[in-house]
Amino acid sequence: MNLRIPGPTPLPQDVIDAVGQQMINHRGPEFESMFREVTAGLKTFFETNNDLCILTSSGTGSMEAAVVNTLSPGDRVLAVPIGVFGDRFAKIAEAYGADVTRLTYEMGKAADPAEIATKIVDEGPFMAVLLTQNETSTGVTNDLEAICAAIHGAADPSPLILVDGISGLGAIRLKTDEWGCDVVLSGSQKAWMAPPGLAFISFGERAWQAYERAKMPRFYFDMGLARRYAERGQTPTTPCVPALYGLQVSVRKMLEEGPEAIAVRHQGIGDHCRKRALDAGLGLFAEPGHYSNTVTAVTLKEGMNTAAVLEELRTKHGIVGGASKAPGVEMIRLGHMGYVTIEELDQVFDALEEMI
Amino acid sequence: MNLRIPGPTPLPQDVIDAVGQQMINHRGPEFESMFREVTAGLKTFFETNNDLCILTSSGTGSMEAAVVNTLSPGDRVLAVPIGVFGDRFAKIAEAYGADVTRLTYEMGKAADPAEIATKIVDEGPFMAVLLTQNETSTGVTNDLEAICAAIHGAADPSPLILVDGISGLGAIRLKTDEWGCDVVLSGSQKAWMAPPGLAFISFGERAWQAYERAKMPRFYFDMGLARRYAERGQTPTTPCVPALYGLQVSVRKMLEEGPEAIAVRHQGIGDHCRKRALDAGLGLFAEPGHYSNTVTAVTLKEGMNTAAVLEELRTKHGIVGGASKAPGVEMIRLGHMGYVTIEELDQVFDALEEMI
Repeated sequence: MNLRIPGPTPLPQDVIDAVGQQMINHRGPEFESMFREVTAGLKTFFETNNDLCILTSSGTGSMEAAVVNTLSPGDRVLAVPIGVFGDRFAKIAEAYGADVTRLTYEMGKAADPAEIATKIVDEGPFMAVLLTQNETSTGVTNDLEAICAAIHGAADPSPLILVDGISGLGAIRLKTDEWGCDVVLSGSQKAWMAPPGLAFISFGERAWQAYERAKMPRFYFDMGLARRYAERGQTPTTPCVPALYGLQVSVRKMLEEGPEAIAVRHQGIGDHCRKRALDAGLGLFAEPGHYSNTVTAVTLKEGMNTAAVLEELRTKHGIVGGASKAPGVEMIRLGHMGYVTIEELDQVFDALEEMI
Repeated sequence: MNLRIPGPTPLPQDVIDAVGQQMINHRGPEFESMFREVTAGLKTFFETNNDLCILTSSGTGSMEAAVVNTLSPGDRVLAVPIGVFGDRFAKIAEAYGADVTRLTYEMGKAADPAEIATKIVDEGPFMAVLLTQNETSTGVTNDLEAICAAIHGAADPSPLILVDGISGLGAIRLKTDEWGCDVVLSGSQKAWMAPPGLAFISFGERAWQAYERAKMPRFYFDMGLARRYAERGQTPTTPCVPALYGLQVSVRKMLEEGPEAIAVRHQGIGDHCRKRALDAGLGLFAEPGHYSNTVTAVTLKEGMNTAAVLEELRTKHGIVGGASKAPGVEMIRLGHMGYVTIEELDQVFDALEEMI
């Protein structure tokens, strides 16, 4: 199968081999050594010296962790959804009682740094801003550096910056410390070439200060507990060991290639994907200038039906694409993060061209 | 390694092989078929026709799910801790604002059904009772059938019965429907012979009625969302696929053996473990009549040190045991649930006898 959904992503064979190993004691020395190695590797790609914890959950669990560990019910939060997953981040904050103001962008658009700053100046103060690095539902990458700069310039102290980096981080640079991102999230099944089951969350100094005041209820996702256990190379409760086995191998591969080389490779893959889409007469859902290098949302031609296209790709060509998440828009979403080749993308567009 | 901690437990080779497979689409037909098969198999061992959902978390996540989906802040809850994990269940309810009354038993003791009933009559009404089937920290199995009968007889309507079956279910019978357990939990890395990463939660009719009223905040562990997705053979967010691959194989093996045969086998293994401990002049931490067939807490002889014994077992004999969880008590905990043989336990006691 040519698995081209935006996660779970395909695993290299040596990662698969690592995943399929006998269990070990999660309180023993072998685990500790693996845990410390993976944590250090992840920090390299998070580009941070902040604490980083590994949670057993999907990426959504880490969104919840970001919210409940920094906020109290009633806290004013600015959410900036540019698609389904940004909207989910806002909904989690609402579910836990935050007073959420939304600056919502039409699907396909990126967030505007100046508008975010204006919103903070006009309607602030906000305790936190919820941001998306890369919106999986639309194939849009925000200009996170500019957004962070705008937020830091808009208020003093600036609101906490909580960033969903789930589907971008590891393939698209995210300079956590340089840009001043207080909390950053990602998930093992995205650019990390590992199976689903683990989420990652970095927590900076300001986030820990917020943690001390935060009154939202939490237990499973308590970052204080996670940090205390991480200090001894463990997790508070039994972690997803197979995903960690895989991650140990995949992060080694990523470190060998290096963050910038990986980002450049994804730029090339993204460019190629977009060129093939346009050459085939198909459209790009994302606005120019904000194309994602990990997910491309390809709009179909008049008369083409998303479900029918996905079914034909799957049954006739062994290609699995993602469905449209934009109501009323006929499009397919293609993941191209982590373990992916130009040839695999060419197979998709060769197949799509047959259907046109 | 002879992995004898009470989870993660060792995996049979065919389960390991299943875990190490390429990823698939968690919204596709192959996943749906696997998900439905595993869910049906789990229900056989939960002995229930209730809804059963699969969560990506450790067992503790399912404890949180049990609490936040049935209760509101301020609700009166009776917790009956008989050890560390029962205490954790109570702490989760407290973290989310429940008004928790504790009926705490000394570590090593089982809960008394009559005392629970008296507590409900004297100090009720309670919205829910938090129970442990098998306490991993002490090697004690509660008489859950008698406790449930006592609770149902103590009030009308009786409080909701929320049962942590994490380290017992699948090896020790738990008749969810017959005994009237409203919510029951377990975790993939225990008797299920699968890797950690997934938790299971069954939810009965009264639990769903409570869900409609429950006001504790929730998102990641929202059972309403989980049920809606389970109806189409999916999970709300990306699940831990490798653990599900393993579980598909291990649950098939378990169904072939059958719930009663598995329980009888564990009774034999538990009896053997206890006999070897006593024959070696070691002690049993659990009170007679409530010995666990999945975890034995073996108290050491005067002068023996837990850390030293565990270290020698590991480095000299390749045996990994669990540490004491009872403050001041020198003991080791041995897991013998799921994939375990008499010979593996004999190795442990042969090694221990060398040390005495």
